[in-house]
Amino acid sequence: MPRKHLLGIADLSPFEISMILDLAESTKSISERTIKKVPTLRGRTILNLFFEPSTRTRLSFEIAQKRLSADTVNFSVSGSSVSKGETLVDTAKNLAAMRPSVIVIRHGVAGYPHRLAKLMDASVINAGDGFHEHPTQALLDLMTIRERKGQVEGLKVAIIGDIARSRVAGSNILCLSKMGAEVTVMAPRSMLPYHIKKTGVNVAANLKDAITNKDVVMALRIQRERDSVSRFPSLREYNRYYGLKMEHMQYLKDDCIIMHPGPINRGVEIDPEVADGPLSVILEQVSNGVAVRMAVLLLLLGGRNIYEVSD
Amino acid sequence: MPRKHLLGIADLSPFEISMILDLAESTKSISERTIKKVPTLRGRTILNLFFEPSTRTRLSFEIAQKRLSADTVNFSVSGSSVSKGETLVDTAKNLAAMRPSVIVIRHGVAGYPHRLAKLMDASVINAGDGFHEHPTQALLDLMTIRERKGQVEGLKVAIIGDIARSRVAGSNILCLSKMGAEVTVMAPRSMLPYHIKKTGVNVAANLKDAITNKDVVMALRIQRERDSVSRFPSLREYNRYYGLKMEHMQYLKDDCIIMHPGPINRGVEIDPEVADGPLSVILEQVSNGVAVRMAVLLLLLGGRNIYEVSD
Amino acid sequence: MPRKHLLGIADLSPFEISMILDLAESTKSISERTIKKVPTLRGRTILNLFFEPSTRTRLSFEIAQKRLSADTVNFSVSGSSVSKGETLVDTAKNLAAMRPSVIVIRHGVAGYPHRLAKLMDASVINAGDGFHEHPTQALLDLMTIRERKGQVEGLKVAIIGDIARSRVAGSNILCLSKMGAEVTVMAPRSMLPYHIKKTGVNVAANLKDAITNKDVVMALRIQRERDSVSRFPSLREYNRYYGLKMEHMQYLKDDCIIMHPGPINRGVEIDPEVADGPLSVILEQVSNGVAVRMAVLLLLLGGRNIYEVSD
Repeated sequence: MPRKHLLGIADLSPFEISMILDLAESTKSISERTIKKVPTLRGRTILNLFFEPSTRTRLSFEIAQKRLSADTVNFSVSGSSVSKGETLVDTAKNLAAMRPSVIVIRHGVAGYPHRLAKLMDASVINAGDGFHEHPTQALLDLMTIRERKGQVEGLKVAIIGDIARSRVAGSNILCLSKMGAEVTVMAPRSMLPYHIKKTGVNVAANLKDAITNKDVVMALRIQRERDSVSRFPSLREYNRYYGLKMEHMQYLKDDCIIMHPGPINRGVEIDPEVADGPLSVILEQVSNGVAVRMAVLLLLLGGRNIYEVSD
Repeated sequence: MPRKHLLGIADLSPFEISMILDLAESTKSISERTIKKVPTLRGRTILNLFFEPSTRTRLSFEIAQKRLSADTVNFSVSGSSVSKGETLVDTAKNLAAMRPSVIVIRHGVAGYPHRLAKLMDASVINAGDGFHEHPTQALLDLMTIRERKGQVEGLKVAIIGDIARSRVAGSNILCLSKMGAEVTVMAPRSMLPYHIKKTGVNVAANLKDAITNKDVVMALRIQRERDSVSRFPSLREYNRYYGLKMEHMQYLKDDCIIMHPGPINRGVEIDPEVADGPLSVILEQVSNGVAVRMAVLLLLLGGRNIYEVSD
Repeated sequence: MPRKHLLGIADLSPFEISMILDLAESTKSISERTIKKVPTLRGRTILNLFFEPSTRTRLSFEIAQKRLSADTVNFSVSGSSVSKGETLVDTAKNLAAMRPSVIVIRHGVAGYPHRLAKLMDASVINAGDGFHEHPTQALLDLMTIRERKGQVEGLKVAIIGDIARSRVAGSNILCLSKMGAEVTVMAPRSMLPYHIKKTGVNVAANLKDAITNKDVVMALRIQRERDSVSRFPSLREYNRYYGLKMEHMQYLKDDCIIMHPGPINRGVEIDPEVADGPLSVILEQVSNGVAVRMAVLLLLLGGRNIYEVSD
């Protein structure tokens, strides 16, 4: 892969996406061994810069890095010079001067990883920027779909929730469309982007229409912490009209899979019986997250092919 | 050791306890070398989940893990999805999906590590749960006693302090009793469990009676941060009646050892002259903590015998 | 180097300073390789104790340690037993009982690293103590000067800013004077030490006089976060009389270099055009920071000579 950064799905070709997923099938097996480690990225310094709270994404990246034997350094907002008034560009240039191989960054401002990428020799991986993109999430979702469905082309996928301000939705719509799936979205009007119909996705009128006859149903998280101004009357109201509940199971195809990027708000966008039910692949998504991030790191750094690595 | 988790001393047989201490004698020597590292747990991912503040326990576990070459990933409460409203069970399942080998957990709720253990394939080590247990602390205390006294059976041990709400006391009373020591406790009435006499320990009427003719005297920490409602008039009052002071040294056996789990409140439960005096083994406890945790990790993961490891 | 601790430049001989810089030239090349790692400090436990916020110093030390294969354990103030009321001396003794090889400490109290050094077997490295010393900063500054100028003896160096309460200034004045450079300082009267003339440095009357005909001009950071009582009317006023601006470039020698320890307050002590201009070596300082810290670690621990290490 000649690419140096992973900033968004928007930049990737279907061929590159497939290459990442193919390699992720191999890297997944590393996490299934007793000795979950290969020496491929030994001596590479990787900085994890998280300017927003995160459990699974940060841990997933850190575990992926350590299983590839990279040296991992974490950088948190509190306790950093950012609180001393340094500009983010200066912080970035200073980090680059310490010669990391990769910088993984999550930031509340859309486009910040792209600015960072122009300033440094290191590879930059976008781990979520504002309402914009979260490319490794879309890739792990796609991996989960491909594992379960065999292929992605022609699949019908419904995405339910705050489409307008979800970077998970943003990256997934791009990724699924590129790979030939047909995407239908459903959300309160206040959570749909103004130009949604121009993006080529279908917009369903209600939850029943959205999920009927779909191969994949993905519920998005209500980002309570990002939105002080409510876009709907109450969480209970949201659950009533937009939450996935047992009563909806009758409309689903027998082999439909139910996805959620986590963390789950049980009883809001998804009911516990659905999240823990037989159609849910939510925890497979988490496992695949480690595998996809290992694959991305390997491809960006041009590591020796994983098959050639003797452990 | 066929055991998968270390949740509490309550589960362990005297044979298992001895096995851990025997192995800890070997692992202790690793920390006394210049190269303090063996490759035994290479490629094992260990998550440290601390939901309460800690210096020595978290550092002790992390150092133990690194000296065994495991990959260590820390997870702090702030900056995690717990602040996003995810349930602890969901957090646990998600962590498990990343396939760690061990999860070390400290949590304010008694029994939480036990719930976690039922949800995941990983080994779970309880690093302190509420007022319940802190098994590695009791094991390191026992190791320190055994090193100094040769054997534990028949020893007389006094424990002074908040017996009712100290997990250190809880695990130590269980552990010492199992190994054949005779335990006497002394505390303000408000700090004694209601059913204390049913546990088989002696209850002393005052500090002098408690410590006279004992082989081991253990002062517990006043957990100021856990208790906004005072159980005694003042810290000064506590020190007056329950604090170990120089004036008590006359009642101690010449070879008595004085223990404290740390961190010390100097001038409250123990006076500086006693904590720093010749009978104190407080810092030996800390050193033994690393050794005991290495031993527990090795036994739970069924690592190759430490003697066979070439470095 | 027979020295065990690095507490301040005050302790070092010119010979020792040169030895550190000579070794740093070698360690710098490690960070320029693809595999940025040598096994020299494998199995050494290094604790990083930062009691004040820091980006570059903490990361720089951590990266240096990992590139030497040491085991790195970070200890932050929040989430530690310091919040449980333990004394710093007790914290230190407890950390020492876990047998680290090195403790790197930043603390707001001048002299605290020196106290720590008396209490433990580990090597102690001062990463900044109050207004006192920051020896690795002075060494990386000296390395940058030596790289650019060939030698240090006879150079004329201007330092502009809060001389009285800057540990960077403190260590640099000591270090440059020992190596035979001539130091001139310039600052608002409220930021000059009372006995400044006894230290052997020149005091310039204004910025133009300070920087004219100098080989090196170093701007110090305004420590806004350390000083609630203002020592000057406003940041704008500071910039007007003490900030390095494009209008000053005419007074500089053609081969003058401009330095700043970072993080930069753009538009306060240095204008963006100067910080990003052709004379600036600010990012070289950051790169050299990793190299110098690797060299210090190697020399304190008496590691095998870096040249002998096969990777």
